[in-house]
Amino acid sequence: MTQIVLPELHALAQAALAKSGAHPAMAEATARALVYAEGDGLASHGVSRVPFYAGHLKAGRAIGSAQPRIANQRGGTVLVDAGSGLAFSACAMGIAECIARAPQYGIACAGIANSHHFGAAAYHLEALADAGLVGLAISNSPAAMPAWGGKRALFGTNPIAAIFPRAHGAPLLIDLSLSEVARGKIMMAARDNKPIPEGWAIDADGRPTTDARAALAGSMLPAGGVKGAMLALIVELLVVALTGSQFGFETASFFEDAGGPTRIGQAFIAIDPAALAGRETYLARVETLLTAMLEDDGVRLPGERRRALRDRAHAEGVEVPEALLAQLRAMAA
Amino acid sequence: MTQIVLPELHALAQAALAKSGAHPAMAEATARALVYAEGDGLASHGVSRVPFYAGHLKAGRAIGSAQPRIANQRGGTVLVDAGSGLAFSACAMGIAECIARAPQYGIACAGIANSHHFGAAAYHLEALADAGLVGLAISNSPAAMPAWGGKRALFGTNPIAAIFPRAHGAPLLIDLSLSEVARGKIMMAARDNKPIPEGWAIDADGRPTTDARAALAGSMLPAGGVKGAMLALIVELLVVALTGSQFGFETASFFEDAGGPTRIGQAFIAIDPAALAGRETYLARVETLLTAMLEDDGVRLPGERRRALRDRAHAEGVEVPEALLAQLRAMAA
Repeated sequence: MTQIVLPELHALAQAALAKSGAHPAMAEATARALVYAEGDGLASHGVSRVPFYAGHLKAGRAIGSAQPRIANQRGGTVLVDAGSGLAFSACAMGIAECIARAPQYGIACAGIANSHHFGAAAYHLEALADAGLVGLAISNSPAAMPAWGGKRALFGTNPIAAIFPRAHGAPLLIDLSLSEVARGKIMMAARDNKPIPEGWAIDADGRPTTDARAALAGSMLPAGGVKGAMLALIVELLVVALTGSQFGFETASFFEDAGGPTRIGQAFIAIDPAALAGRETYLARVETLLTAMLEDDGVRLPGERRRALRDRAHAEGVEVPEALLAQLRAMAA
Repeated sequence: MTQIVLPELHALAQAALAKSGAHPAMAEATARALVYAEGDGLASHGVSRVPFYAGHLKAGRAIGSAQPRIANQRGGTVLVDAGSGLAFSACAMGIAECIARAPQYGIACAGIANSHHFGAAAYHLEALADAGLVGLAISNSPAAMPAWGGKRALFGTNPIAAIFPRAHGAPLLIDLSLSEVARGKIMMAARDNKPIPEGWAIDADGRPTTDARAALAGSMLPAGGVKGAMLALIVELLVVALTGSQFGFETASFFEDAGGPTRIGQAFIAIDPAALAGRETYLARVETLLTAMLEDDGVRLPGERRRALRDRAHAEGVEVPEALLAQLRAMAA
């Protein structure tokens, strides 16, 4: 591992993406999001994605010249068409619209159509909290989990994130996906020839399996069984049917270059506390709940570990595998 | 069990609630919602609740004279204060506001403050689907589950429901709570002196238990572990902090008469597909996903069983325990 400061990593990722065909603003927005994830300790959503994004740009699964545009709007609602570009500029446009519209209409929603992997879901929400807004983010992703009772992967692991601004200090940040575990855990078990616990996955025939390789050939299982499956269905319909994008089962894995544009969907919702019980009431109520949570030994506020890592990353930089850094440097050259 | 037609059951529940102190509109709205749940086969949210609601009305945990009122509004957003009445009139007012506002602003949100048990969550959403809107419903409830890592119940089981109108026929209906299992299942095991599976609950000291009675003295566990706990936290903050209501840990069980008004919160969100990718695209995309789901043997669309039961209930009535019917008749007399 090599220690590298964030601005240097940002410049490197940005140059690698630009050389791979992303137009300058797309390369910058993407690099910023991936470096944020690195700083938060989310390496699986960090600069390790650059080679995969670059592969998509070269293979036409993502369009480097795409410019996001507003395809529809009404009151608090806006549809941003990402035009099959990388997701981050389109998401930023949607978030900016939410920040502009939520104070006026109380609630705002940005749907992102024809989009791509949007990285760490909570990333997009930070700007909403800075504006004093409560935020929600959802996305679908390539098929990884079956519908409840089914054998074939239909839904993505479909991340859900939420942000709640607080009276003082950093907002409360919640970020989860709807599979029982992250696919990366099964990939690591397969690499290490280790079994996986029952309940994580099914094999290609829909049978429960503890064989990590059989699991990778099969499907992930949803968190909480039927509950996670139903929540994944809700997310899939909200971000795809409302935006006119592609379902998880209609797009190939993020780690493949073949298959055409991913065209998945995202949605952001922003709510202004002032339009409901008021800002002061909202802020006081949040503190009451968090105080009660912390009275119980062993409870940690979500997002705290990430934020501690972030502070350290801003001060000291992050560690990145040497081989990955070498790859990024070669791409950027 | 005694067979009874729905209009007769409705009249009986309405009279029992009115005699217990609910004003006429509150009694009617409540009876309608409870009979809907009976028809859908959700007896735990049906007329078995009438004696508990009546107990609350008499003990001041619910105010029978309360009139819901709009406490704040802005664009697509409205805050309805239920005034500690039974929830259903206030929820109906919030839904009516969503139906009026979503077509204008694309998205609408009704927060319900100082509310009570809102029964089967999906009930409220049916009118949104009739208006061609996608709908979401959430509520908190008395504390039943700990925060992640904690021992003490802080969050309710916090139901989430969604409705998606379809091109033809009944809308897709999803309705779940965030505990691993319904508390009723543990109550039945305790009654029958049977053990419960590990993962359903913890005892009063926060230890995993298979003893149903120890579980009832302890806390339910969230569906999917940390994921369900984080989702319950999101719901709790949305419906309470934004509306100025009470958290799950601030209110006594629905099955107790002591403890003052429940003052929990709800929120409804309605989205007009026409404001995003358009109605035709939305309807076509929904059918594409449902068709793919049904190609997999063993997959059943959520809400189908409920709707089949509903059709039968409307034709033939429902079976209600004789003792409960006798109790309702005595209350209504």
